[in-house]
Amino acid sequence: MIRESIGAVPLRLRARRFRVSAWRSRVRARVPGGPALPHYISQASLHGQRGRGFYRQLVRAGTGARPGAMAEWGERLAGVHGVLLDISGVLYDGGEDGGAAIAGSVEAVARLKRSGLKVRFCTNESQKARGALVGLLRQMGFTISEGEVTAPAPAACLILRERGLRPHLLVHEGIRSEFDQIDMSNPNCVVIADAGEDFSYQNMNKAFQVLMGLENPVLISLGKGRYYKETSGLKLDVGAYMRALEYACGIKAEVVGKPSPEFFKSALKEMGVDAHQAVMIGDDIVGDVGGAQRCGMRALQVRTGKFRPSDEHHPEVKADGYVDNLAEAVDLLLLHSDK
Amino acid sequence: MIRESIGAVPLRLRARRFRVSAWRSRVRARVPGGPALPHYISQASLHGQRGRGFYRQLVRAGTGARPGAMAEWGERLAGVHGVLLDISGVLYDGGEDGGAAIAGSVEAVARLKRSGLKVRFCTNESQKARGALVGLLRQMGFTISEGEVTAPAPAACLILRERGLRPHLLVHEGIRSEFDQIDMSNPNCVVIADAGEDFSYQNMNKAFQVLMGLENPVLISLGKGRYYKETSGLKLDVGAYMRALEYACGIKAEVVGKPSPEFFKSALKEMGVDAHQAVMIGDDIVGDVGGAQRCGMRALQVRTGKFRPSDEHHPEVKADGYVDNLAEAVDLLLLHSDK
Repeated sequence: MIRESIGAVPLRLRARRFRVSAWRSRVRARVPGGPALPHYISQASLHGQRGRGFYRQLVRAGTGARPGAMAEWGERLAGVHGVLLDISGVLYDGGEDGGAAIAGSVEAVARLKRSGLKVRFCTNESQKARGALVGLLRQMGFTISEGEVTAPAPAACLILRERGLRPHLLVHEGIRSEFDQIDMSNPNCVVIADAGEDFSYQNMNKAFQVLMGLENPVLISLGKGRYYKETSGLKLDVGAYMRALEYACGIKAEVVGKPSPEFFKSALKEMGVDAHQAVMIGDDIVGDVGGAQRCGMRALQVRTGKFRPSDEHHPEVKADGYVDNLAEAVDLLLLHSDK
Repeated sequence: MIRESIGAVPLRLRARRFRVSAWRSRVRARVPGGPALPHYISQASLHGQRGRGFYRQLVRAGTGARPGAMAEWGERLAGVHGVLLDISGVLYDGGEDGGAAIAGSVEAVARLKRSGLKVRFCTNESQKARGALVGLLRQMGFTISEGEVTAPAPAACLILRERGLRPHLLVHEGIRSEFDQIDMSNPNCVVIADAGEDFSYQNMNKAFQVLMGLENPVLISLGKGRYYKETSGLKLDVGAYMRALEYACGIKAEVVGKPSPEFFKSALKEMGVDAHQAVMIGDDIVGDVGGAQRCGMRALQVRTGKFRPSDEHHPEVKADGYVDNLAEAVDLLLLHSDK
């Protein structure tokens, strides 16, 4: 039906002009009569080598359940050489029992690694040390090593050393070992991470008092996520508590982790791929998708983890595509990207 | 010295043009040569009947330790008929042992009440029910009754009833009784107050999950204070946790209590005094001073409770005067206001 309605104008031209992020509602709106393309449709989120084999892909993909969507994936994923994968909510959902792999993700990671595309894991996980996280994922069947993971705690340690900062830690016990080599005497800053149950009033108040006692209070936050999903439901993330301390102390935190551009850039550098050749896959519309796009990357949001339907209508951030899960994202990447 | 340096121009004119809030640094800066008054000095924070007996007061007050300051109090307090008193940090500092009256405050309240000025207590206290708070203050020697206190919990109950809202409460045990008559089945909003130690991760997460489960999440916050002072030190106040939930849920809380204009107006109405005839005395530069000024009142900040020296250089709010404590404020009021 869509193919018929857009048959009157050159397919390639029309498809190119679509702002991918909102393709679905717009294509649907255009089905009956095919009015002129509205002014807000731009090429802003289209990158790479466009149009190569496009018509063929469109026709082939057009036979699927969402023909317009499939037609566009060739455009969206052209020129991709490297993939950054979020972990929580994409590979697995955490939980008190250790959590569980998301259906299809173990196989998806394995296929991606065999494909020839470069792969790196880019996480804001700040409850578990990197070694423990990788150990957990390997138990679930993922092929992953510690050296493939970009995580905020090691990045924060570099910053602390460079600037002579001695942190008071408001973090989960599980990540404290990452700071073993850091001087923590007579603190001159606070490092906050996803402390989970350790976000007690007492612990928050202690961090607040340390900051209020400093002439130049420095608050370093490992990520600024609003919430994440565990097997038991949505959970408040570090960003909420970062905001609480910012407000109470009248200061602005320095964020180490997504969506900080420095963090994405270090992951890209470690992967050896330029931003315009990389795609981020995550469940956080702001931290993963918006952050990666601001660095010049493309970004897909999975409908797993913390994803909520309203994310697809976020007032500020539009993903370059929405997929049901990592498995679907990898299907599309293997079909359309330049391997 | 100051009197000599400003003797060359009409005293009344120069004094009037001072922005009271910054009198001290500016008067000091002008001492040696008396340059022209800078453009930023305005009458913005001066109210009421100016100049009546002003010269006499200036000369008399000018013999004190801070002559310029005393000279101005007559201006600042002219036309005051009613006084709103903050409680925590002005009358007493709370604490786990029940807290302690601030030196001179018991006598100051008694003198104020005998003076003929109208007096009302305007508090954001949200850990204790109004009856318990008044009982505690009376034990300390204050002359105060429940009917003289404007507090956020009763105001919130009015709103809940008016709008058919059924709250999930994130509050301290001590104030739960204020909501005894409110339907709390199947919650369609969250009410947050200063929960103190009850701001556990579990309780915060529960409130977060209630809000995320609502189609139109409503968060009502009893005040939005950043912190307050107890005998053991500074403590995080409800505002920090309100910000955490706002950020996590992507919503904006409705604040019941200072600095909400509706709250100040209800206190003024209950006192029977117009805003321009009233002065607020508090320890919170934003919640007490800024809030009252935005309602057309004058406001003094005491250097007790949560006061910090940096408050006198707040980038947005300038009090109509800073006093060491309530006792000094009452001294000045009895000397200069219209009783």
